[in-house]
Amino acid sequence: MSDLRVGVLGAGQLGRMLALAGYPLGMQFRFFDPDPHASSAMLAQHIVAPYDDLAALDAFADGLDVVTYEFENVPFATAHYLAQRVEVYPPPRALEITQDRVAEKGFMHAAGLSVARFVPVCSCSDLEDGLDIVGLPAVLKTRRMGYDGKGQRVIRDASSARAALEDLGTTNLVLEEFVTFDRELSLVAARGREGASVCYPLVENHHREGILRETRAPAPGLDKQLQRMAESGAQQMMSTLNYVGCLAIEFFQRGDELIANEVAPRVHNTGHWTIEGAVTSQFENHVRAITGLPLGSAAPIANAIMLNVVGSFPSLERLLMDPAAHVHDYGKSPRPGRKLGHVTLVDDDLERVERRAMRVRALLA
Amino acid sequence: MSDLRVGVLGAGQLGRMLALAGYPLGMQFRFFDPDPHASSAMLAQHIVAPYDDLAALDAFADGLDVVTYEFENVPFATAHYLAQRVEVYPPPRALEITQDRVAEKGFMHAAGLSVARFVPVCSCSDLEDGLDIVGLPAVLKTRRMGYDGKGQRVIRDASSARAALEDLGTTNLVLEEFVTFDRELSLVAARGREGASVCYPLVENHHREGILRETRAPAPGLDKQLQRMAESGAQQMMSTLNYVGCLAIEFFQRGDELIANEVAPRVHNTGHWTIEGAVTSQFENHVRAITGLPLGSAAPIANAIMLNVVGSFPSLERLLMDPAAHVHDYGKSPRPGRKLGHVTLVDDDLERVERRAMRVRALLA
Repeated sequence: MSDLRVGVLGAGQLGRMLALAGYPLGMQFRFFDPDPHASSAMLAQHIVAPYDDLAALDAFADGLDVVTYEFENVPFATAHYLAQRVEVYPPPRALEITQDRVAEKGFMHAAGLSVARFVPVCSCSDLEDGLDIVGLPAVLKTRRMGYDGKGQRVIRDASSARAALEDLGTTNLVLEEFVTFDRELSLVAARGREGASVCYPLVENHHREGILRETRAPAPGLDKQLQRMAESGAQQMMSTLNYVGCLAIEFFQRGDELIANEVAPRVHNTGHWTIEGAVTSQFENHVRAITGLPLGSAAPIANAIMLNVVGSFPSLERLLMDPAAHVHDYGKSPRPGRKLGHVTLVDDDLERVERRAMRVRALLA
Repeated sequence: MSDLRVGVLGAGQLGRMLALAGYPLGMQFRFFDPDPHASSAMLAQHIVAPYDDLAALDAFADGLDVVTYEFENVPFATAHYLAQRVEVYPPPRALEITQDRVAEKGFMHAAGLSVARFVPVCSCSDLEDGLDIVGLPAVLKTRRMGYDGKGQRVIRDASSARAALEDLGTTNLVLEEFVTFDRELSLVAARGREGASVCYPLVENHHREGILRETRAPAPGLDKQLQRMAESGAQQMMSTLNYVGCLAIEFFQRGDELIANEVAPRVHNTGHWTIEGAVTSQFENHVRAITGLPLGSAAPIANAIMLNVVGSFPSLERLLMDPAAHVHDYGKSPRPGRKLGHVTLVDDDLERVERRAMRVRALLA
């Protein structure tokens, strides 16, 4: 038996799916999460403590071969503390960059990707100057801790700028060009300890109220040139950071342009389709990468549509009326806007998978 | 969240794979196994006690929605005791039948399947009479607790009959016709609580030293008529027992004849390929069936070859050199003849999957 011991910071659904992918490879898992009711609690060891509890972190690290994390807002100090005791992958430096929208944008740009114009904002006058550079409309965002569309305001005219600034708290903000786009795409890539990497195909994403609702994989009608651009940017970033694990980049597509918007140093909601839709899932490739195993093929096996279950869960009986539906229930209590699970449909026939998705969508509405 | 609570008697690899299939559906698991180091111990609640410890069985049953079992040698009394407290699926009657080779053969025959000639043997004179009926060569088997080729002796001439009888302990035996065959096949079927059923395709199996080594799915070059015969037998059996869950039937194929050899009231090693090779795995269909959910499609998605890892585990690094290999490590200590894991290869191209299997086979040798 392989007997690899993996620790995961955060015990939500991403951690849960990492464990479900790692168990078949003989790995063992231990989670660290302040929430005793976290999604992964029942299926592995679970240490319940705040992220700054050093004694708990010591106990967590004890005997582990490697530590990873399932969300990018893990305090950098926590990852750094653990990294002195045990291998931490992806490297904590990736957290530092992706926790700050300004560093993140600069990093994506340095990797050869196009990004929207952006200006750091710490004051009212920064904002006024910024609007001159970025133009209108623009988006004012907190530099840190934003997710699922939280912590941002669209500024459509100069008169609403001040209110947006006050809403978000004046300092540590970034003003970004408001990007008009044709559609949203994302790429998940994985890099192993030895430097080999694989990229999943770009996928098409649909958000509503700032929350991902659906992913189509591979992105229909995609120009191969865009896939090459996205892969080149991902590989450049991963190689610069000596990155290990999965990394996701969110893009806007406008014509034949690809504009990088965000990077997540982890498995990603837009990669959930890979569990049944790709030869090797993003979760398996992440645990393979961090434990030093060879990566698996990231090739898609058919057309996939992934639909998120948000807020409340329809009955399993009804979702499973499609005899080929793959339903994932994260075991979380319902709450408006909360991601509770997802449904993946895989089909050789593109029209049929769209028809099947329509029926699932009706149940989720 | 679905919050279905499933108890499993036996915490070996089959139980483990049931839990890994049930977690995505939001189910919770609790295992009962006398072995504290059983394969599933780490990934769910685990009650360690002998199967006749009634207080431990009470604690096990407490709060569960349904109990199932992962091996057919669960004491009938245990299943019967639990069935007075909680739903037990498959029905304990299926254990009673399949734990006795004579009842099992009679049951398969009653379901319209051909079986080898057989005679119960309790004495030396039974054996002599039996050899007249069954002919030579013949196989003498214990009626109970045989698995992986254990508890049986081939009798090639009358002079060796007595030694075989003494080896196996004289009473509660069955003498069976020695069936010559072209190949071994098996069928896994699943039946839900409402009576709907699905059948996976017949697969071709290869044993060595009485232990399954490889499964090819679907069985290459199979006449559809054989599939129909096998399905009809399975459906007849399941309907007679008001069966719920997965059931496996092992067959010998001789020309266009299908001779049923054994029934297992559970998920089966020859169905492991379904995890990646079928739309819905046998494990998921088993947990769906016992919890009253609709069954999923049992259609294969491509050609699959499953190779068992027996006795010792090659390095994961080498097995994963095939970037599309699916490796399953049950987390068990190595021991000669012990099933430690399996590797599944899935491929649209039949010749390519054979070439890939050849490389894995070399690593397993």
